[in-house]
Amino acid sequence: MNTIELTDIGNDTICAVSTPQGRGGIAVIRVSGPQALDIVGQRWQGKPLADMKTHTVHLGHIVDTNGDMLDQAVLTIYRAPNSFTGEDVVELACHGSTWIQQQVIQTLIDAGCRHATAGEFTRRAFANGRMDLSQAEAVADVIEAQSRAAHHVAMNQMRGRYSDELKALRDKLLHFTALIELELDFSEEDVTFADRSEVTTLARGIHALISRLADSYRDGNAIRNGMPVAIVGQTNAGKSTLLNALLRDDRALVSNIHGTTRDTIEDTVVMGGTLYRFIDTAGIRQSSDAVEQMGIMRTWQAIDKANIVLWVVDVTSADTSMAHSILDHCKGKALIVILNKTDLDDDVAARSELNDLHLPEGTTVVAISAKRESDIEALRDLIVKNAALPDVESDAVIVTNARHYQALTRARDAIARAISGLDSGLSGDLLDQDIRECLHWLGEITGEITTDNILGEIFSHFCVGK
Amino acid sequence: MNTIELTDIGNDTICAVSTPQGRGGIAVIRVSGPQALDIVGQRWQGKPLADMKTHTVHLGHIVDTNGDMLDQAVLTIYRAPNSFTGEDVVELACHGSTWIQQQVIQTLIDAGCRHATAGEFTRRAFANGRMDLSQAEAVADVIEAQSRAAHHVAMNQMRGRYSDELKALRDKLLHFTALIELELDFSEEDVTFADRSEVTTLARGIHALISRLADSYRDGNAIRNGMPVAIVGQTNAGKSTLLNALLRDDRALVSNIHGTTRDTIEDTVVMGGTLYRFIDTAGIRQSSDAVEQMGIMRTWQAIDKANIVLWVVDVTSADTSMAHSILDHCKGKALIVILNKTDLDDDVAARSELNDLHLPEGTTVVAISAKRESDIEALRDLIVKNAALPDVESDAVIVTNARHYQALTRARDAIARAISGLDSGLSGDLLDQDIRECLHWLGEITGEITTDNILGEIFSHFCVGK
Repeated sequence: MNTIELTDIGNDTICAVSTPQGRGGIAVIRVSGPQALDIVGQRWQGKPLADMKTHTVHLGHIVDTNGDMLDQAVLTIYRAPNSFTGEDVVELACHGSTWIQQQVIQTLIDAGCRHATAGEFTRRAFANGRMDLSQAEAVADVIEAQSRAAHHVAMNQMRGRYSDELKALRDKLLHFTALIELELDFSEEDVTFADRSEVTTLARGIHALISRLADSYRDGNAIRNGMPVAIVGQTNAGKSTLLNALLRDDRALVSNIHGTTRDTIEDTVVMGGTLYRFIDTAGIRQSSDAVEQMGIMRTWQAIDKANIVLWVVDVTSADTSMAHSILDHCKGKALIVILNKTDLDDDVAARSELNDLHLPEGTTVVAISAKRESDIEALRDLIVKNAALPDVESDAVIVTNARHYQALTRARDAIARAISGLDSGLSGDLLDQDIRECLHWLGEITGEITTDNILGEIFSHFCVGK
Repeated sequence: MNTIELTDIGNDTICAVSTPQGRGGIAVIRVSGPQALDIVGQRWQGKPLADMKTHTVHLGHIVDTNGDMLDQAVLTIYRAPNSFTGEDVVELACHGSTWIQQQVIQTLIDAGCRHATAGEFTRRAFANGRMDLSQAEAVADVIEAQSRAAHHVAMNQMRGRYSDELKALRDKLLHFTALIELELDFSEEDVTFADRSEVTTLARGIHALISRLADSYRDGNAIRNGMPVAIVGQTNAGKSTLLNALLRDDRALVSNIHGTTRDTIEDTVVMGGTLYRFIDTAGIRQSSDAVEQMGIMRTWQAIDKANIVLWVVDVTSADTSMAHSILDHCKGKALIVILNKTDLDDDVAARSELNDLHLPEGTTVVAISAKRESDIEALRDLIVKNAALPDVESDAVIVTNARHYQALTRARDAIARAISGLDSGLSGDLLDQDIRECLHWLGEITGEITTDNILGEIFSHFCVGK
């Protein structure tokens, strides 16, 4: 994914390779803008573009500036406004050599195209009213999605479910302002408003809706980026063996992400249609060694970032000397205690140790052998259960975007101020200001209110060619 | 590039991702076969495929087995025989997430598709007479091409220039057999053939044509895989600095290929539209150290593989003590002697040393400073000149394929036997056998004569999806 800074969203004609980087059977080069047909026409040998109907494909040749043939290609034409961007769009499917891709882009630029910046096609789709901003952002999320859940949530957003919900919220808020402004209009006449409690009820309802959306972000973020699960325990408890056992079933979707911090390795795997991000940590033990203490610090940090903690205990030693430190750091997290190495010993001693610890309510204890991979399936189910993610298939709107979350919390703050203003009898013009701020933040999500800076930031995270 | 073994080229319906691997704006999934419309139709929400005209595109949704939407997609339909494969073809352009690509392929397989093997679409195009075998092979070469020259030669082959030339050769050979068989028919009657010399002239002409094609392989192989250039010289002569200076100008097209042999690094760069493969070697010096001697052995091997040798001499030491060994190994190669480090000293002493050596005719001597990058442009021109590659723009047929080269040399051997048979008055039926063998080898290139083994081997080098 490229992060080229957006500079100029004019009405010139842009081009880029839209298919993944590298070599393949075919590559698709997309051209969009008012001159798309004219520019491609200069480099096309075949049926004239002027004679092509929209949504048709044509075999021909792409030629370079000298008229030498670059490639045989299939041209697809989309006439404005019936295209992804809403502009005239031409797509050239050529042979997928990197050399051809470079040359075709170069000859289009020579003929008057500009190379598209990251996300510029989608930005134009947004600018031309083909989609709102949250839908445009969902396009990038759809492309990034690595699991059924992340895909489902992004698709819902792209199809406008989220936008519909935000629109309903805005309509309610506008109704609210109308009521408040009515009060302002009659303020001179000292009219008593029978519906003041009605206004308060409406405001509380809006607050609840915004809160529900904002609160969904915790799950949404986990769905989009992977549910973080820390694996902790004393040295030699079998943490890495457990990790391998957990990953084995879905090898194809496993990847190793080397963290920025040395010695921290993250592995992702899809379980039950959701991406889990396992964070393997250094073994915890009492140590006066400075380097080892740094490793343990990282373990605590990993726990802080995790939603779920797997605490691995070796049944053969049943050593829980570090238990209090671990439990201290796990407050507010879903905790699963794993009694490992049941192939070597029973779990009686370890369970007895745990009993003395007064584990927090809701903690699950499970006995396994990571080495023999026994009871791993049960553990996997337990992790999924502890993740307690909402059913994405229910089509309830789930917020996955940090920018949206920020705007929603600000909108929630504004409506909360309005509610407390209503309770304390704040004057109508001040209430009106809070509600307008709330409207502002919601409008920023859908792009009704926005700035070039925000747009630049959003689309810079897209890939070029989309 | 995948190398899945071909097993079954039936008339079932196949599918594969045709765009490069990985994530991008869009990905294209190709489906080909008699059931293509029916199978995609089961997973398509939108206009029914039966109502679509060939060569049109349609927006709709791809759904999975349960009817849940997988993605919004653009469908392109090509009705047989007007498609790449000659069969019904449907292409689905979906969002380029790896997850979507996997899921769409999976749902098509669930609906009755088989995942295509490497090159299977092109193999079907060949089987259905859309192209001959040498053209099909050129498709893979077009995709692999990394330089203008390699691209040009592959495009010529794909467009059938080579096939045309082979066809002309076959026609001549068939005329030859007709003449020989005429002789056989009349052999009982002891007729004198006035045209026996005509037959010999024809055979010599055919031999010359086949030889020209076979001989073009040396250049063709260099064009396709990169012209090998060895950089040799004593330790600390500035070989690596020179390599960097040579590569600098075309950074974007530079790549490092770590060889199978430890310590051998190859770098490729495009100069004058052709790919050059520079092989950096260990410094040569008298040594009794076993490890160092092994390194020097590799240097001699690198020279053996190279078409051009750059011998780097340090002007500050002007030490040519290893000169005779180097010159011995360079026989038959284009040799350029490079007097390096002209920023530190003049080249008078070094030139005088060289004069005593009696350099082979055609050897060029050039003085440069690799460190200052002075005179590098002149050296680059000199390398291109020494490569002495044919002008690919002239559209003369150049053989780039090892399989074709092998078939051509066998065809040449056969026709040479026929010629010597003609000279020695060999009987017509034996001559006929040689000519038929010559025809056989030429037919193997275009695929008129072929076996499943040969086809399997050829297409296994394709990427899946083409």
